[in-house]
Amino acid sequence: MADYDPKTHSLITFHDRAAAFRDGADTPRDLLERCIAAIGAREDEIMAWAHLDFDGAREAADAAGARYRAGRPLSPVDGLPIGIKDLIDTVDMPTEYGSTLFAGHRPKQDAAVVLALRQGGAVIVGKTVTIAFGGGDPAKTRNPHDPRRTPGGSSSGSAAAVGAPTIPAAIGTHARGSTIRPASFCGAFALKPSFGAINRQGVFSAADSMDHLGTFAGSLRDVWIIARHMARLAGGDPGHPGLYGGAAPPAPRKPMRLVRLETAGWAATDEATKAAFEEIVAGLAASGVEIFGHGDDPAIDDYEARLAEMPELWRDLYRFEMRWPMLQYLALYPDDVPPRLRRGLEEGAGLTQETYRAALVRRAHVRALHGELASRADGFVTLASPGPGPVGMDQGSAVFNEPSSVLGAPALSLPLMAADGAPVGLQLMGRIGGDEALAASGLWVAEHVLGRPV
Amino acid sequence: MADYDPKTHSLITFHDRAAAFRDGADTPRDLLERCIAAIGAREDEIMAWAHLDFDGAREAADAAGARYRAGRPLSPVDGLPIGIKDLIDTVDMPTEYGSTLFAGHRPKQDAAVVLALRQGGAVIVGKTVTIAFGGGDPAKTRNPHDPRRTPGGSSSGSAAAVGAPTIPAAIGTHARGSTIRPASFCGAFALKPSFGAINRQGVFSAADSMDHLGTFAGSLRDVWIIARHMARLAGGDPGHPGLYGGAAPPAPRKPMRLVRLETAGWAATDEATKAAFEEIVAGLAASGVEIFGHGDDPAIDDYEARLAEMPELWRDLYRFEMRWPMLQYLALYPDDVPPRLRRGLEEGAGLTQETYRAALVRRAHVRALHGELASRADGFVTLASPGPGPVGMDQGSAVFNEPSSVLGAPALSLPLMAADGAPVGLQLMGRIGGDEALAASGLWVAEHVLGRPV
Repeated sequence: MADYDPKTHSLITFHDRAAAFRDGADTPRDLLERCIAAIGAREDEIMAWAHLDFDGAREAADAAGARYRAGRPLSPVDGLPIGIKDLIDTVDMPTEYGSTLFAGHRPKQDAAVVLALRQGGAVIVGKTVTIAFGGGDPAKTRNPHDPRRTPGGSSSGSAAAVGAPTIPAAIGTHARGSTIRPASFCGAFALKPSFGAINRQGVFSAADSMDHLGTFAGSLRDVWIIARHMARLAGGDPGHPGLYGGAAPPAPRKPMRLVRLETAGWAATDEATKAAFEEIVAGLAASGVEIFGHGDDPAIDDYEARLAEMPELWRDLYRFEMRWPMLQYLALYPDDVPPRLRRGLEEGAGLTQETYRAALVRRAHVRALHGELASRADGFVTLASPGPGPVGMDQGSAVFNEPSSVLGAPALSLPLMAADGAPVGLQLMGRIGGDEALAASGLWVAEHVLGRPV
Repeated sequence: MADYDPKTHSLITFHDRAAAFRDGADTPRDLLERCIAAIGAREDEIMAWAHLDFDGAREAADAAGARYRAGRPLSPVDGLPIGIKDLIDTVDMPTEYGSTLFAGHRPKQDAAVVLALRQGGAVIVGKTVTIAFGGGDPAKTRNPHDPRRTPGGSSSGSAAAVGAPTIPAAIGTHARGSTIRPASFCGAFALKPSFGAINRQGVFSAADSMDHLGTFAGSLRDVWIIARHMARLAGGDPGHPGLYGGAAPPAPRKPMRLVRLETAGWAATDEATKAAFEEIVAGLAASGVEIFGHGDDPAIDDYEARLAEMPELWRDLYRFEMRWPMLQYLALYPDDVPPRLRRGLEEGAGLTQETYRAALVRRAHVRALHGELASRADGFVTLASPGPGPVGMDQGSAVFNEPSSVLGAPALSLPLMAADGAPVGLQLMGRIGGDEALAASGLWVAEHVLGRPV
């Protein structure tokens, strides 16, 4: 297997196809057929899909093609081949939540975002593999850059299919690290938006106050277009205003000042990854981006100290919130609850409302610190994972992901680094609600590092 | 039909049974059999139940009886016969959401609060009738005090069964007026808690940012005991701290100052109801409770002006939030969406994210006004409905309920009034999170008016 190189690894982009779709140089059907061929070539090895519907996709792609020929695409995602994580309801395909308990389950409706994609003309290729109930047990998917490695989870199939690449985009979820981590391991662009920014109705969630709808794509501009399209049609979560920003991707914008974060993850990071990160940070500084970190500001030191507690805080929140429905599944259908998930449930079964309340107070405190720092900088730069996807079936550490999950702050994984011949993502985190500004910073940083449009 | 008189109408209480259960003077099974007899005598006329499980209830009651005999009841709700609104999932009984679309539906798990009730030893008698999907179309249930009248909705069966009375308690939901309104019409005590205070996981919700888990009982102390028990075991909604307060009901507490509210509902209120309300307010004032209203404080005038907009604001929030899943049900299963619900969906289908965002901003503003006034008073006193349940199948106006639904403030309906020979509830509303203080005020007010423990 050739070593992965972020500068040369080519992903599938979509937003640059619209002109060709209109003038007939390319068609949504041809794009889909290229994806189907790529899936055919790689699926036996990667195992990214829980269900494929090429017939339905071809029909949708042909309809999109007719709309482009008529000069009337439905939306910026018209004709986009996309994969849907199998924690997300689809009315026309099985939705099994990666579990035996829901084998063959057919929801009565699409998730709100799936309907939004359909209404925009997107071509739903199939359901991507998820770890069962988004929990901790391995799924079958393998890393497209090295089959010995995990693709990360729980949005394993979505990240692997986009990173391979076999398709231009996929959606997933993220309650701990389930979007940013697999994107890092598989070399895909991904956005975990601000909490509540993209509607999660019809999505299985085990940690409702920390779960997010994530978007993966081969292009950061596509990530934005897809996320914004879903939020425009489906809204945010009820009670939330939904993702702010324009339908078109923002222009790249050079950040003036970034806070460099190490978090609890730095101690777990391998040297090659640290070196790759330092090189990027040095390059940003050399180009005039002010970088502040540990020791530069007491507020950063205080914030870092609180971030170091995020894994433990995340655990208390998750274990209390996952009790429903998972403790009942454990009691009623024990054979359908895989062993790691079971262990977490058993360990958390005794958590009290008082412990949970204390965790909510701690979260409010760290959110306030985050907001204070976010008001003084254009964002936060750190790693998306402590290294490339580990060899084996373990889905890898989420230690760099728990902070943004607890905070509800938007985060990007940018495929800008390699270590040990495999991808590692750079993570940018923004202020809560500032997803568009984060995307603008991310575009500038990624294009600065890669030297080409993303 | 004899005229309803709140001072003499007797409801079924539970918290006063524990001593008798322990010493054998009464048993949970005997209490249940009295309920079963009452249901048998009234059900043909009231039609409060979508499903009854007397066998399962008898088994649960016998188990509770054994625990009391052993001196080891599981909780303050051990042995409590209770009805579950059919929008709330039960693993062992059909859960049809009042709809043909979910005919015979069997959830894979109990709603979180149903599990909490079971874990506490409560005796689940059956599922109570709901209006389909909690929407606007009539259900079959009739008012227990006058079968020509509506019981109100959408928690029609829960309110009618408690108010009849045939059982001591039931749970329901409330996104607009679905707990407080039917409690008012049926003469039951009820609490719509602060938003998020009682877990709604496993509950069908069409307006997720305004829906609440409501509790009905024949005693206000039982309302508190049941609500607090559910919140203690199930928690609040994810991300919320859950109902604050002790497991035992608070002591009655005389409010020092109440804000008297008229809202948009006053203009719709009949004269007999206005007279009954004025008599209570005058009685409170005569006993030393300071009453402030329109004209007494510019902040109240401003707040009243905003409250007058609540029906319209509620509508914008509801119609945007109900799009999922209801617009899909309308498209895919049109015969299963009853006509009023369909009309609301069609009228709201064109709502944009911008309109919804504007509604959220307006809600934040009126919440701030509410919080400001709540900090200066012990609560708000108003009507629970603009009169008794109307004759006919219309579920009645929610104009007095939209304010607390939009605000997320806790509200009580107290069965203290009659008009035209039928019940009308007094509504007390509290500060957000101040459910226990509201219950303490409610106990004092109700006992002051009725002259007996509630």
